[in-house]
Amino acid sequence: MRIGILGYGNLGRGIEAGIRQNDDMELAAVFTRRDPARVKLATEGVPVYHVDKAKEMKDEIDVLVICGGSATDLPVQTPEYVKYFNVIDSFDTHANIPQHFANVDAAAKESGHVALISCGWDPGMFSLNRLYANAILPEGNDYTFWGKGVSQGHSDAIRRVEGVKDGKQYTIPVESALEAVRSGSNPDLTTRQKHTRECFVVPEEGADLARIEETIKNMPNYFSDYDTTVHFITEEELKKNHSGIPHGGFVFRTGVTGLNKEHKHVIEYSLKLDSNPEFTSSVLLAYARAINRLYAEGQRGCKTVFDIAPAYLSPLSGEELRAHLL
Amino acid sequence: MRIGILGYGNLGRGIEAGIRQNDDMELAAVFTRRDPARVKLATEGVPVYHVDKAKEMKDEIDVLVICGGSATDLPVQTPEYVKYFNVIDSFDTHANIPQHFANVDAAAKESGHVALISCGWDPGMFSLNRLYANAILPEGNDYTFWGKGVSQGHSDAIRRVEGVKDGKQYTIPVESALEAVRSGSNPDLTTRQKHTRECFVVPEEGADLARIEETIKNMPNYFSDYDTTVHFITEEELKKNHSGIPHGGFVFRTGVTGLNKEHKHVIEYSLKLDSNPEFTSSVLLAYARAINRLYAEGQRGCKTVFDIAPAYLSPLSGEELRAHLL
Repeated sequence: MRIGILGYGNLGRGIEAGIRQNDDMELAAVFTRRDPARVKLATEGVPVYHVDKAKEMKDEIDVLVICGGSATDLPVQTPEYVKYFNVIDSFDTHANIPQHFANVDAAAKESGHVALISCGWDPGMFSLNRLYANAILPEGNDYTFWGKGVSQGHSDAIRRVEGVKDGKQYTIPVESALEAVRSGSNPDLTTRQKHTRECFVVPEEGADLARIEETIKNMPNYFSDYDTTVHFITEEELKKNHSGIPHGGFVFRTGVTGLNKEHKHVIEYSLKLDSNPEFTSSVLLAYARAINRLYAEGQRGCKTVFDIAPAYLSPLSGEELRAHLL
Repeated sequence: MRIGILGYGNLGRGIEAGIRQNDDMELAAVFTRRDPARVKLATEGVPVYHVDKAKEMKDEIDVLVICGGSATDLPVQTPEYVKYFNVIDSFDTHANIPQHFANVDAAAKESGHVALISCGWDPGMFSLNRLYANAILPEGNDYTFWGKGVSQGHSDAIRRVEGVKDGKQYTIPVESALEAVRSGSNPDLTTRQKHTRECFVVPEEGADLARIEETIKNMPNYFSDYDTTVHFITEEELKKNHSGIPHGGFVFRTGVTGLNKEHKHVIEYSLKLDSNPEFTSSVLLAYARAINRLYAEGQRGCKTVFDIAPAYLSPLSGEELRAHLL
């Protein structure tokens, strides 16, 4: 199957690398809003086009992976490009998923394509685990923890503080909270009890460090509800020790069964990822395989990970799956 | 939806209890090979019939849950009862799944029903996690650990040893092996390095304890490849401290991504279950809902958990799932 990439940032580069790990896929083209002449791919012989040319390639691509941001790119791009392609995105603004779904579904049905939105790990694999676990244990509690990992939004917030040259923020789940959930005790946990936030900040020369720290720790929405630690470091240290994009997290469901609800059960799913965008890309590619198959079967419209039978994700046949993975 | 139970042992009782936790289900009948007059349900007003009467109830039941054993019951029962019902079983003899699938699929297609085989947690939820994780990380390693939990087969083996009155065996994953896998170091682990076995044995009066211990520890297939501990206890202690049927386990996939395979990822799924049969029952009921829906949509034949889109398991609508769980 022929994959197209729209947007060549961290996620687009992750898709490019991931295609090399899947024998049934090839990279057909990359589309960019930048000057295509200035975009250098890691893959030889693959064309780079300006996005305006994308629709001309509609017969050369089986699935277009849209690698834009959720704030302003995807709400426009996904309904637009599903007019010409089967598409997949990682739209992750949870509150706006119903609206995005409706927009993409209408456009996909009109053009006769398949779209998959909100794919990745959260939303994505975490959502799947929430659904399976809720269906299995109807009486219980859900818990989601994120990290240890880099939050792009919080890192951006740090960098907007006066006197800050650069910075990176890690979201860290509180170990005692994880243990309390694992024990099956169904704790009620406040925001502060679930996660801490650790900031590594490169100050401008002569900046007021105490004031930077105070501003970060009291920032509403981002930091004020958390126990936050601020470390001041040099630009070299930031580059050397904090240039990765790790992430991960935990999804739990704890519940009860039995005539007297006397038996406790704990379902735990966790991810520990060296590269958030590359793992997200790997999930997107498995689902790109699925939507290519659904399209071939005659299905149309917008899907989510909830709508897709797991077997569609694998290159193996039903016989092979039953013999080796069941 | 109207559920029938065939076989009223631990699993059948788990199904009965689980139905009370699902508002869209009711228990229609229980079928037994025993004298129905001697089977007392926990639920008032539900009829108990001899299995020979089952086919007469074919229009009163939407899904029949077959709660027999994998060794001799299910290979006969599932292909037989799918002639009259949509059925689900927990067939767990991994090596024989392809043959069982073929038998059930042929019978289900001939009679126009839907069957789901090998449902539960392993095979079942563990299988799903293996499939998803393999599709996402094509280059990597799989690890499955079981326990801490009671192995029925190993407990039976203990009880067959001369001089043993009763006994229970726990399978325990080795913590250092779990940690090695979690680190992403891709260790090669022998059978002995992955699990230990702990036995609680009630000896007959005057039995040769040293000989019992020796016999257990050297039993081929069951214990000789493991580090095994044997504790001798009284019948009262066994009853008081070891009458539960807990189980659980861990499924890992560790893999790499990146142009130079420089990024490691660890996917971990684990279960900690107070009651193995009740949790298995809870999984079976969620999938019973799914096959009832597939049947209503006109699907026929044998399925596995790989073939069923997750949304079918939940009582929630697509809109509700997207708004609350995605």
